[in-house]
Amino acid sequence: MAEFKHLVLVKFKEEVVVEDVLKEMEKLVSEMDIVKSFVWGQDIESLEMLRQGFTHAFLMTFEKKDDFTAFASHPNHVEFSSKFSTVIDKAVLLDFPVITVKSPA
Amino acid sequence: MAEFKHLVLVKFKEEVVVEDVLKEMEKLVSEMDIVKSFVWGQDIESLEMLRQGFTHAFLMTFEKKDDFTAFASHPNHVEFSSKFSTVIDKAVLLDFPVITVKSPA
Repeated sequence: MAEFKHLVLVKFKEEVVVEDVLKEMEKLVSEMDIVKSFVWGQDIESLEMLRQGFTHAFLMTFEKKDDFTAFASHPNHVEFSSKFSTVIDKAVLLDFPVITVKSPA
Repeated sequence: MAEFKHLVLVKFKEEVVVEDVLKEMEKLVSEMDIVKSFVWGQDIESLEMLRQGFTHAFLMTFEKKDDFTAFASHPNHVEFSSKFSTVIDKAVLLDFPVITVKSPA
């Protein structure tokens, strides 16, 4: 069965202390074994036109889709999402089964 | 040194045969050893409001930022990007050094 990814691109509100949000996100993920991996990054270099204002990408991987579904509906995640929605200017979410074309040797 | 990711979210034009674009993308990646891994996915399930019309995510990973820079400026990629821009309705790109919070056990 395919791995499943939860991808979130974000532009934070200007006054937001991103480090604080990251701490909460790390706490959420560390408490939930169901999240297989979690990486993120900040793009402050590429062309603004291509980024369209988005600055951060968050990428969680789950063993299977059911795990993501359980994560998404878990009270901890629901509570986090509710707070998260107040600190962002905009976001795009994509959730998808992973198709691997090339994997690290 | 951190791995580097190249993330592209896309909404294709309606008349586009996505399979054909994917084949070209797979060819590009398979020809360039510098691309460490390449996965993608299609989200046709989550809320349209959250997806904002984007349907596909493409995610390439490089050993280091210099490899991405070399990839981005390589004639094969430049040629592909030029074609790619004609088949998409919209796209967001984010390029970033990877910060790993949780890695697969």
